[in-house]
Amino acid sequence: MTRSTALLTDHYELTMLQAALASGAAHRRCIFELFARRLPEGRRYGVVAGTGRALEGLAAFRFDDDALGVLDGVVDDATLAWLADYRFAGDVWGYGEGEVYFPDSPVLVVEGTFAEAVLLETFLLSVFNHDSAVASAASRMTLVAEGRPCIEMGSRRTHEEAAVAAARAAYLAGFATSSNLAARQRYGVPSAGTSAHAFTLVHDSEDDAFRAQVASLGTGTTLLVDTYDVAEAVRRGIEIAGTGLGAVRLDSGDLGVLARDVRRELDALGAHDTRIVVTSDLDEYAIAALAAAPVDGYGVGTRLVTGSGHPTCGFVYKLVAREDDDGRLVPVAKRSPQKGSVGGRKWAARRVVGGRAVAEVVSHADTFAEDERPLLRPLVRAGEIVGTEPLDVARERHAAAVRELPVAARSMARGEPVIPTEHRTARGSVAP
Amino acid sequence: MTRSTALLTDHYELTMLQAALASGAAHRRCIFELFARRLPEGRRYGVVAGTGRALEGLAAFRFDDDALGVLDGVVDDATLAWLADYRFAGDVWGYGEGEVYFPDSPVLVVEGTFAEAVLLETFLLSVFNHDSAVASAASRMTLVAEGRPCIEMGSRRTHEEAAVAAARAAYLAGFATSSNLAARQRYGVPSAGTSAHAFTLVHDSEDDAFRAQVASLGTGTTLLVDTYDVAEAVRRGIEIAGTGLGAVRLDSGDLGVLARDVRRELDALGAHDTRIVVTSDLDEYAIAALAAAPVDGYGVGTRLVTGSGHPTCGFVYKLVAREDDDGRLVPVAKRSPQKGSVGGRKWAARRVVGGRAVAEVVSHADTFAEDERPLLRPLVRAGEIVGTEPLDVARERHAAAVRELPVAARSMARGEPVIPTEHRTARGSVAP
Repeated sequence: MTRSTALLTDHYELTMLQAALASGAAHRRCIFELFARRLPEGRRYGVVAGTGRALEGLAAFRFDDDALGVLDGVVDDATLAWLADYRFAGDVWGYGEGEVYFPDSPVLVVEGTFAEAVLLETFLLSVFNHDSAVASAASRMTLVAEGRPCIEMGSRRTHEEAAVAAARAAYLAGFATSSNLAARQRYGVPSAGTSAHAFTLVHDSEDDAFRAQVASLGTGTTLLVDTYDVAEAVRRGIEIAGTGLGAVRLDSGDLGVLARDVRRELDALGAHDTRIVVTSDLDEYAIAALAAAPVDGYGVGTRLVTGSGHPTCGFVYKLVAREDDDGRLVPVAKRSPQKGSVGGRKWAARRVVGGRAVAEVVSHADTFAEDERPLLRPLVRAGEIVGTEPLDVARERHAAAVRELPVAARSMARGEPVIPTEHRTARGSVAP
Repeated sequence: MTRSTALLTDHYELTMLQAALASGAAHRRCIFELFARRLPEGRRYGVVAGTGRALEGLAAFRFDDDALGVLDGVVDDATLAWLADYRFAGDVWGYGEGEVYFPDSPVLVVEGTFAEAVLLETFLLSVFNHDSAVASAASRMTLVAEGRPCIEMGSRRTHEEAAVAAARAAYLAGFATSSNLAARQRYGVPSAGTSAHAFTLVHDSEDDAFRAQVASLGTGTTLLVDTYDVAEAVRRGIEIAGTGLGAVRLDSGDLGVLARDVRRELDALGAHDTRIVVTSDLDEYAIAALAAAPVDGYGVGTRLVTGSGHPTCGFVYKLVAREDDDGRLVPVAKRSPQKGSVGGRKWAARRVVGGRAVAEVVSHADTFAEDERPLLRPLVRAGEIVGTEPLDVARERHAAAVRELPVAARSMARGEPVIPTEHRTARGSVAP
């Protein structure tokens, strides 16, 4: 059974609930939107990730006795009683997982009473802010790797549970494999790995270590060749494993220079099919710089799991409309020059002309033109989770969404979002 | 029951285990060290955090049937059989949680067979790299806040489980409270919070919202006063709650200017004890900039949970010594100009002269002078966890360790580590 997720939230969600239950506002129908006011500086697009995990977590968002015990003293008895029966019974729509997003894209739309929808704020933001940050970084890396496989190996550089989510996010954004075994367990992410320097060092010699590895893991394994002398290690590796050795791994030094030297040496030894994998402090820029080097795979760690400089997306979860005393839904928004938001329920579509995305359309009406592909899909209907899908569907959706973007999306240079966000009022909406 | 932590690890730890079991090297006694080669650029000291969580996780690091099922196909049957009985039976020493650290400080020392110690690598690194990054950022923030309470509220900006660990790390580094309810549940971290803009917006007017909040949460509550007009909100807040209103919160705008205006207004209204809490995109620099403003508390979110620009510590876990065929422990190290490490078992102490830390001593011998305070304490003895302690002990240890640092530790300017790390060979060691 999944552990309750209900306390993975902020104290103030509960005190607001208490005060709103007392005032009656708790029962007003509300619409909350999860969106980003901007992309991380210089980024051309963002990637939506976390949907699958959010839906899993939503199913476990119930206040069990443990949770109620913790809240005794945080909120009053009336609120505790209400929480004991809590189960989200509203509706959620969202961008398909793996889809790209832009400033003001309504990535998630939650409709329910104030009480039931406000409680989800922190948890939903945590999931989307983290997973989308990693997926957004991962997507740039896989784009610039141009088909060479990227291997996620950042688990040790981030919280142990964030590591699992990062492996999942990287996979949906095009990474080939992950080092993380829990991601294999929970999400079926293909895992891979062979050995580290400690394995060489625990043996009496590099030769002993290579022999032990090849004997146990087969000639298709990847030998780590930079513990002592790279050229010597490559020579000995091929002597021990034969020319069928799967790959060698370089984890330090000038990777471009080393990769060329090693390729030459491997070829001279007849090991034409032995691949070269590099793994030292890579990010999208380092990957781009290695485009001309004879590299067959990139292992990416720290920079991937920390979102390559942007470890969080800046998604916010804002009340954009609520019921009034007459039962009508009225738009609401905070008055602020920096932190304002556009009130009212929104729908979104991507305008695609000749197979190429040209605009993100955020509209107050749910009608779109023929060349506008609607982006919101139902995730939860009256509390029932309907949006669950296999991770590979998100992976394919992501690949398709990125293919559709203008070529500038592939640029590593800082710039504006690769397509503009068009805001359309209900009156100005285009009929289908 | 705690969920198994055994798959929160990298695939290659398991393949190394398989190959080492086959070669026999798996049974060699080994010493692994967890340390950082350097501090994040410009930082004066780091803070050790994660010890308590690591020990919790270690107790749950067992391969249950689920885990073994996942590994079927990753490793061979002999390895699966070995894993089924796995339980770490070695020794672990570590810096006390909350202690400060410097480049090459042996923050954790793990002694056991290669097999049992290598398996812990990824999990231990995840915990310490994350928690220490947050604690290191938090410590700078609490130092510069100079006694004004700091409130951790970054849960929504990081992975939902990382959020809980971040709240714990922030608390041990001196934060007063956290918004995170799971941290309250699991670690007894004091939680706090009152309301957000959505609470104001769901009511028909700010007046209605304030009335509802004060009626339900009491006059000691904190009113959020920047949804519409700050001056008006402050006036109405005091009218509604009376001069006993606990606090007002500012979450946008020029906080220094606003805080002065609000203080003047509160005083003019007679609300001399009503505090002012600010919460918009703060970090240690923003806190420092507000030192002269009439602010009574800082809420810190994004920048705290992302380590204020350094979301991971760069801790590595290196094999530094292993048994040879004659049963002697021999030092080992990778040969690398950038990624080298110093072989051999190390001990550490802080030299403190006249109550002031002057050096971090990393020695190959475990004897220290009288003015050198040993830093390693036993955490695990022959597999038994002996280092568990209440979180408040770590919190007090942190406060004491920081008090002892040179005043330059309080500088927000980038610089070198505030004390040097002295390496001492066994021969050059000082007798006590």
